[in-house]
Amino acid sequence: MTIVQKYGGTSVGTLDRLRNVARRVAARAAEGEQIAVVVSAMGKTTDDLLSLARAVNPRPPRRETDLLMATGEMVSSALLTMALVEMGCPSVALTGAQAGVFTDDTFGRARIRGIDTWRMEEEFAQGHVVVVAGFQGQSPQGDYATLGRGGSDTSAVALGAALRAKQVEIYTDVQGIYTSDPRIEPNARCLKDIASEEMLEAAQQGAGVMHPRAVELGLLYEIPILVASSQAEFGSGNGTLIRGKVEMEPENRVRTIALDRDVASVTLRHIPDRPGIASQLFGPLADAGVSVDTIVQNASELQLTDLTFTVTKDDWERTQEISRPLAGELGAADVLFDHDLVKVSLIGTGMQSGPGYAATMFRSLSDAGINIELITTSEIRITCLVRADRGEEAVRVLHSAFALDQEI
Amino acid sequence: MTIVQKYGGTSVGTLDRLRNVARRVAARAAEGEQIAVVVSAMGKTTDDLLSLARAVNPRPPRRETDLLMATGEMVSSALLTMALVEMGCPSVALTGAQAGVFTDDTFGRARIRGIDTWRMEEEFAQGHVVVVAGFQGQSPQGDYATLGRGGSDTSAVALGAALRAKQVEIYTDVQGIYTSDPRIEPNARCLKDIASEEMLEAAQQGAGVMHPRAVELGLLYEIPILVASSQAEFGSGNGTLIRGKVEMEPENRVRTIALDRDVASVTLRHIPDRPGIASQLFGPLADAGVSVDTIVQNASELQLTDLTFTVTKDDWERTQEISRPLAGELGAADVLFDHDLVKVSLIGTGMQSGPGYAATMFRSLSDAGINIELITTSEIRITCLVRADRGEEAVRVLHSAFALDQEI
Repeated sequence: MTIVQKYGGTSVGTLDRLRNVARRVAARAAEGEQIAVVVSAMGKTTDDLLSLARAVNPRPPRRETDLLMATGEMVSSALLTMALVEMGCPSVALTGAQAGVFTDDTFGRARIRGIDTWRMEEEFAQGHVVVVAGFQGQSPQGDYATLGRGGSDTSAVALGAALRAKQVEIYTDVQGIYTSDPRIEPNARCLKDIASEEMLEAAQQGAGVMHPRAVELGLLYEIPILVASSQAEFGSGNGTLIRGKVEMEPENRVRTIALDRDVASVTLRHIPDRPGIASQLFGPLADAGVSVDTIVQNASELQLTDLTFTVTKDDWERTQEISRPLAGELGAADVLFDHDLVKVSLIGTGMQSGPGYAATMFRSLSDAGINIELITTSEIRITCLVRADRGEEAVRVLHSAFALDQEI
Repeated sequence: MTIVQKYGGTSVGTLDRLRNVARRVAARAAEGEQIAVVVSAMGKTTDDLLSLARAVNPRPPRRETDLLMATGEMVSSALLTMALVEMGCPSVALTGAQAGVFTDDTFGRARIRGIDTWRMEEEFAQGHVVVVAGFQGQSPQGDYATLGRGGSDTSAVALGAALRAKQVEIYTDVQGIYTSDPRIEPNARCLKDIASEEMLEAAQQGAGVMHPRAVELGLLYEIPILVASSQAEFGSGNGTLIRGKVEMEPENRVRTIALDRDVASVTLRHIPDRPGIASQLFGPLADAGVSVDTIVQNASELQLTDLTFTVTKDDWERTQEISRPLAGELGAADVLFDHDLVKVSLIGTGMQSGPGYAATMFRSLSDAGINIELITTSEIRITCLVRADRGEEAVRVLHSAFALDQEI
């Protein structure tokens, strides 16, 4: 059976840590597992290379930037392989291209199109551990393309899918997925497991441990993903298993609370209600590449409607530039901008069937004197926008209200 | 018309120097030349990467060592391209593989098998300067293979041949090829040009500016090679042109004097003369990978022969280990080892037709009280082995005896 392991930049940040990773991999290989290891560049290499590029050209060409970035993972994969060989564990290092990872040619944020596993299978057949340079693949013209944010996690899960791995293991500097950020709520528990859809919501709400893109792949291909600390021993009960399969029976509880600080909101008040408002507003925003997160529209008064939507802080300025004139065209009474908000989300596959969760959420926040500015829901998520300075408190209030510190 | 330029590690050792190189390239491109630029890794990168490898594994696997080494040239070629683009000169960076350089799979000292220029031609057609990562190519299995000593020079000349370049320009930190090492003889002149065969002899005698392998390629494909300083302006009369074509009419003069300090000699004295001595001795040496440089055999007394040969200092110990027992088996009276010698060589295409050169050489050295231990010749070279502490003096004596400080 094949497993795929992924180690991030911090896990291989120094030669000592790199050797430590090699020891772990060699130990698993000795147990008889066929292993593919995906590595990121060592430490801050990627950032350093980007700085080097910008020192030469403030707007470096994307193709050559990717070529430059790709060397980081080539160095770490070559060194990790050398360490494995030194420990008596036969291994080979493959670039993304050599591992058969094919992408489009959107340099800097390429998407994987497919993976041809012939080389990896050949190496496995010779009893080799295969170390793959993460974050990269080969464009149609044979150029290096890097995968953008969450690239190495995505490489790992995609390889897992292509190799029909029994599990993908993402090694990082935290113990696993928690009921909430332990830095906000000290009583937060590390979950033993979590459903893929719950993990996806959490990742999309900025949970930070894994990129949503990689989680989504795992869900799509039904691959279990273990998220664990690179410091702890394997099999010691370390980590959270993202279960992979779509849930047949929902768990009927709140799994985790996410806090997303990357939020800004726009409200157009008292727009004369008529067909076409939404497309007149969101069309231009989409054309400008602004990703609209949450949209809430409700009737305010007679044939007037209020429209509120949120964007990320990166898109804040562009959103204001576009919204002001559009608000005028739409006949809105005024436009309100607010970037002092955060999103607090309850996530859990069982919640849609039980009305009590929303009620408990709203009441707990209200009892704590925390005003809810906006509410949106999905099948497995209830999100409230609250004032930024009440955000962490809101997390603690909800963590306690749903007794998440206790294992059920 | 196409030209190929090559810049070594020192020439691109810092970002400032790299920008300087970009300026030079951009200026030539602006004159309408189609340019391929071969770059080495920046500064001491290659050595640093090798140290990193050895810190992880004292005997790192060759394949991954080459993968690691190859990143050095990828970084410099990507950065040089970015600098060119920043200066308004459209360029693209190609790895050895992307430039179509195919090698065998002798990692660490791969030989180029062929070059497929389709990608480079495509880039030229779009008006791009093509920056190629030197010192590397693609093995039959699609792995990175580095070319060993003189690799970047060899890349440049090979690309020049494949692209049918009108000239290959090797930029380095000296003005060109001199009549002798200017640090030994201050009156040494920088030659305006030199025949390829003369350059090949000089390179083989350790002249150091270009690797013999690259010179040999230039001779084989009849490509003119300009060796010049990366600091001086192009077209200012800078540099030495290695002429490329085989000489029809020899120049009939001494061109340059080479001093090779990497010498050690072995003499087997009074071997009973019979067929097979040479193969009995040199067979085992060859099997051990020892490269024998000079062999002199002459009859000493009745049916006895003396055999002297030289090797490099790297092979010294191994040579002694093998020669001692063999000397016994061959019945030699004794074995003498000497590593306190140097080779001084006169090089010039005209010398074979005139007996005066050898006579002048021997007389000049003799007049200076410098003993000649061994003499060997080729068609265009006369080499004397002298004691190491008289080596530099021998160079000066000959430089003066042949009036090399004067331009003819």
